[in-house]
Amino acid sequence: MNASVGILGHRGYSGAELAFLLSRHPGVTPVLLDHRDDDAPLRTSLRRIAYSPEAVLAEQFRVVFLATPPEISMDLTPALLDAGVVVIDLSGAFRLGTPDAYQRWYKTPHTQPALLAEAAYGLPEFCRSIIPGARLIANPGCYPTAANLAIRPLVEAGIVDLEAGIVCDAKSGVSGAGRKPSLAASFCEVTENFSAYSILHHRHVPEILRISGLEERHLSFTAQLLPIDRGILETIYFRSTKLKSAAGLLAIYRAQYANEPFIRIHDEGSVPDLRAVQRTNFCDIGVRFDPETGRAVVISAIDNLIKGAAGQAVQNMNLALGLPETAGLL
Amino acid sequence: MNASVGILGHRGYSGAELAFLLSRHPGVTPVLLDHRDDDAPLRTSLRRIAYSPEAVLAEQFRVVFLATPPEISMDLTPALLDAGVVVIDLSGAFRLGTPDAYQRWYKTPHTQPALLAEAAYGLPEFCRSIIPGARLIANPGCYPTAANLAIRPLVEAGIVDLEAGIVCDAKSGVSGAGRKPSLAASFCEVTENFSAYSILHHRHVPEILRISGLEERHLSFTAQLLPIDRGILETIYFRSTKLKSAAGLLAIYRAQYANEPFIRIHDEGSVPDLRAVQRTNFCDIGVRFDPETGRAVVISAIDNLIKGAAGQAVQNMNLALGLPETAGLL
Amino acid sequence: MNASVGILGHRGYSGAELAFLLSRHPGVTPVLLDHRDDDAPLRTSLRRIAYSPEAVLAEQFRVVFLATPPEISMDLTPALLDAGVVVIDLSGAFRLGTPDAYQRWYKTPHTQPALLAEAAYGLPEFCRSIIPGARLIANPGCYPTAANLAIRPLVEAGIVDLEAGIVCDAKSGVSGAGRKPSLAASFCEVTENFSAYSILHHRHVPEILRISGLEERHLSFTAQLLPIDRGILETIYFRSTKLKSAAGLLAIYRAQYANEPFIRIHDEGSVPDLRAVQRTNFCDIGVRFDPETGRAVVISAIDNLIKGAAGQAVQNMNLALGLPETAGLL
Amino acid sequence: MNASVGILGHRGYSGAELAFLLSRHPGVTPVLLDHRDDDAPLRTSLRRIAYSPEAVLAEQFRVVFLATPPEISMDLTPALLDAGVVVIDLSGAFRLGTPDAYQRWYKTPHTQPALLAEAAYGLPEFCRSIIPGARLIANPGCYPTAANLAIRPLVEAGIVDLEAGIVCDAKSGVSGAGRKPSLAASFCEVTENFSAYSILHHRHVPEILRISGLEERHLSFTAQLLPIDRGILETIYFRSTKLKSAAGLLAIYRAQYANEPFIRIHDEGSVPDLRAVQRTNFCDIGVRFDPETGRAVVISAIDNLIKGAAGQAVQNMNLALGLPETAGLL
Repeated sequence: MNASVGILGHRGYSGAELAFLLSRHPGVTPVLLDHRDDDAPLRTSLRRIAYSPEAVLAEQFRVVFLATPPEISMDLTPALLDAGVVVIDLSGAFRLGTPDAYQRWYKTPHTQPALLAEAAYGLPEFCRSIIPGARLIANPGCYPTAANLAIRPLVEAGIVDLEAGIVCDAKSGVSGAGRKPSLAASFCEVTENFSAYSILHHRHVPEILRISGLEERHLSFTAQLLPIDRGILETIYFRSTKLKSAAGLLAIYRAQYANEPFIRIHDEGSVPDLRAVQRTNFCDIGVRFDPETGRAVVISAIDNLIKGAAGQAVQNMNLALGLPETAGLL
Repeated sequence: MNASVGILGHRGYSGAELAFLLSRHPGVTPVLLDHRDDDAPLRTSLRRIAYSPEAVLAEQFRVVFLATPPEISMDLTPALLDAGVVVIDLSGAFRLGTPDAYQRWYKTPHTQPALLAEAAYGLPEFCRSIIPGARLIANPGCYPTAANLAIRPLVEAGIVDLEAGIVCDAKSGVSGAGRKPSLAASFCEVTENFSAYSILHHRHVPEILRISGLEERHLSFTAQLLPIDRGILETIYFRSTKLKSAAGLLAIYRAQYANEPFIRIHDEGSVPDLRAVQRTNFCDIGVRFDPETGRAVVISAIDNLIKGAAGQAVQNMNLALGLPETAGLL
Repeated sequence: MNASVGILGHRGYSGAELAFLLSRHPGVTPVLLDHRDDDAPLRTSLRRIAYSPEAVLAEQFRVVFLATPPEISMDLTPALLDAGVVVIDLSGAFRLGTPDAYQRWYKTPHTQPALLAEAAYGLPEFCRSIIPGARLIANPGCYPTAANLAIRPLVEAGIVDLEAGIVCDAKSGVSGAGRKPSLAASFCEVTENFSAYSILHHRHVPEILRISGLEERHLSFTAQLLPIDRGILETIYFRSTKLKSAAGLLAIYRAQYANEPFIRIHDEGSVPDLRAVQRTNFCDIGVRFDPETGRAVVISAIDNLIKGAAGQAVQNMNLALGLPETAGLL
Repeated sequence: MNASVGILGHRGYSGAELAFLLSRHPGVTPVLLDHRDDDAPLRTSLRRIAYSPEAVLAEQFRVVFLATPPEISMDLTPALLDAGVVVIDLSGAFRLGTPDAYQRWYKTPHTQPALLAEAAYGLPEFCRSIIPGARLIANPGCYPTAANLAIRPLVEAGIVDLEAGIVCDAKSGVSGAGRKPSLAASFCEVTENFSAYSILHHRHVPEILRISGLEERHLSFTAQLLPIDRGILETIYFRSTKLKSAAGLLAIYRAQYANEPFIRIHDEGSVPDLRAVQRTNFCDIGVRFDPETGRAVVISAIDNLIKGAAGQAVQNMNLALGLPETAGLL
């Protein structure tokens, strides 16, 4: 029998994508949970009920997804955990390990510090073993997903000249900003434009540091807004005196991701574009290396709403429920 | 009396922009020169004649612009110089100082090596003194214009940790690829997409090195295709142990460009987007600096068809003819 | 000496375009008027003062433009007229001749019925004679401008089979919806999409009827949202038993607009696209006719922010102040 | 055991979409057929072989899809039929009933007139009974699919005032023009633009007439290019003295399409946009009616590459092979 799962925040772009993915998932039965009066559903025929702790119990949910702002996620999580469901939170509420880090980057105190310590960071390619059994899974940010999948194998391999630093120049589609109307996300402001924001200070930086093993001084990260709906492409630059060839760089990725269903490594001479990953849970990685000077470029591409949000949440749910990791995602 | 000037290649995007700018220029009378049978003009009412060396003489052109591919520019330039006109070439034919450099980056021999040595590189902000009097002006490439205006002051000021290198992550609108139809520039391939090309090996790299003073091993340059019509934004990363503050970085630019009519420096806390420079001859520059770690980011934005091509060509023409440098450009 | 003119609502897209056009106008000195606290100016260096009736007097404005919502225009107009300035209102407040019509289409009572009767409808091509001398000019809506310029000559010529009706299928860029953020104007909702709204019931319909001479039952008008920033293209269909050829149809337009500086009629076999009118005050018109069946198609294109708003307002100001009608607009 | 099916023309947008749909189809095994040397496949891992009549026999194809230009479809079809396969042709080669009609609209003689008479027009909603048993299926054009599904029920119901005529104002994404590079389909020409083409004379008109039951003099059809990748929206206008209400109009569609899996009728007050049909095989239809004047508007939306091409081809294949009609399409 299918497991029952609930979705809070189904009107946002990540939440709606999650509802869409789960509606086609063979192993679960999703239910939309209305948190506010205006939670009219978006182009879906899924069953929808009002959220309440009682309803959560009555529905016997195995998992509840929170596609809500971090402050709402912090509010709702304790009662959900008490009800015995696994919480998969798509916000930034539980991604950083300590209240201090949260305070620094989110500019507000964390209201559930005990849960912060407990939360499992849900990047399956590096944290797979801790997902089953976790009560609370912090689904990674979109930028950190693309960054960590590209950077961590390099750091682990010890080939990066850390003193020269790593540059991660990130570009994202507008859906990453969420569905709430704003001038910055208005069509007339975005079309035929391109702009940078949160230069060196984006709140996704600490997630990259936490998983990649870099220190803050090593990494220069800039987020930029592409005039497209969805997709993140990150162009990552570093220097290496140890690396001999592009083939050697690719070998690191191929060894790391040999058994990963959602990571695709490009052959030498080819790099990913966004088209190939849109509407998929894949992270595509390609490289360029100049052996004479040691300059390396890695390009990492994902769909910010799928591998960067809803798809990865489904991947984590599959792990949590003991379902095949790719169920509903290929 | 207005000076007569000719335009070859007026059907391409740069040439058409040039025709548009010159049609509103108060000091010159532009004439379109047809080089091929299909040189139907684009939405302009400018006078148009067939190109021939005789016609060039008969028209008493002071300047002829070549908005043609480099091999055609090399073919046509000798006869034009013989006719006594100043040639402003918008192609890459005469931008590199030596035949060897040309051979390496353009993968074909240079057919006019003597002229290569003679050509003046037309970046007025750094080469203004050599423009008047030059017979042949090599109008800079679009990417190098944005890059050099941002990078050269840093190199001259000696604040860059060169061993850590400079990253220039460049993004351009599609018009930079020219008007000739190609799959890569087709709407369905570009819309909602983003992709990198010529990673570390773009033919504009030697222009950046030549003017900025960097060596090849210092610079990592990647060109990327934005799903927009026009505009180049370059995000430039470096490290500095000498710099103390963003204000110090801005002071370098403000000193360098105090009297430049086409360079605008953003105040601290603000960086340019493409909207502000589209359809203008401005280069806008903004910075971000982290004093604790020495990480610096500079953003440089231009319109690739104006400051990156046609507008800069008009600026060079103004200098060559002794007209006010901003004539027809504000 | 230049006439002083004021702009209220300079932060909206029409108001900002107006500020841009007036900043380059040779005959006037524009001043931005802040109506609310958050009236920070947009990328302009024009002088800016707080709006008050006293300030209006002190500045000795000849003209004040209202680029404000209709309810604010109704509020502000009486005091401005009392101060002796000519008011050019870009909203719909004064475009319909009667309070009843306003009530029907704007779903709210008109608060200045006396002024409604006095207002001059500012479509210069048909109302030129009443603009000089008018105290209050109702600047036309964007859709009606494109529609009336195309339709009225046909109705006047008596060639339309009115019983078969006229279809006006209108498509507009998103800037027509204004600068206020909304989900409907968000990038992710608009990009790669196309949708109709206000089918048969758009509030611009009565303006078309009033000027074109059509009755409501004759006209089927649909407004649709293009995934572009600016431009309106209207495809107009009618049937004619009297017309013999496309040339005959073009002759009607050529006769009507022989001396009009801002109307361009395409030759037979060609129709306008939006590119040709964007950032101009032109209305371009082209036709197609099938003589065997009497089916006719007329295409009318404008920039919604220029000929459809700010440019036409400048044209009206030029007429009101006795300046050349094209001043600042070519 | 799965039926083997071949795809010629798999590099074009329709052919690539077909390959994608068939790769996920549960009942068939698709094979790409290379017709030319440069038939490199597009982002697919399907098996690929060189096309030859012998290969067709060896593979024991049940169906071969031709996603090729009409002249190639005419060339290849006889040999394929001789080999005993069902041919589903996505080009216009076999859509018109007579050689004269083909000659008139395609401006070239038809080389297989006998097959023209035999071909079954593959619009399942109206021609379902003739698809099983047909050797040659002419897959409908994209514009006619959206038009006929909206118009034919109206004509059959006898509610249209035919003397007033029907207007079909059609807008299509750029993929409808195919993958071959052209200036008209270049990003810089299309973005932020909108234009009409083939006004009143598009080659899809005779398909609409043939199926809808309209005569040429009744229909005014204009095709227009949207700055989007995929989707067709048609705004259809007519007049009716017989119709009493929007509900009555909707009742006609609901009765017609009660059992159709791919037609969705909007409730009163709502009309489709392109977002809802993109990447689906649905045709969405919505209406607006003014009972006082008898003016009616119908909006019909499809994905031009799916219901307008590849999806409908799969639907026809399902019918031809006796598979569930929706297999691989939901």
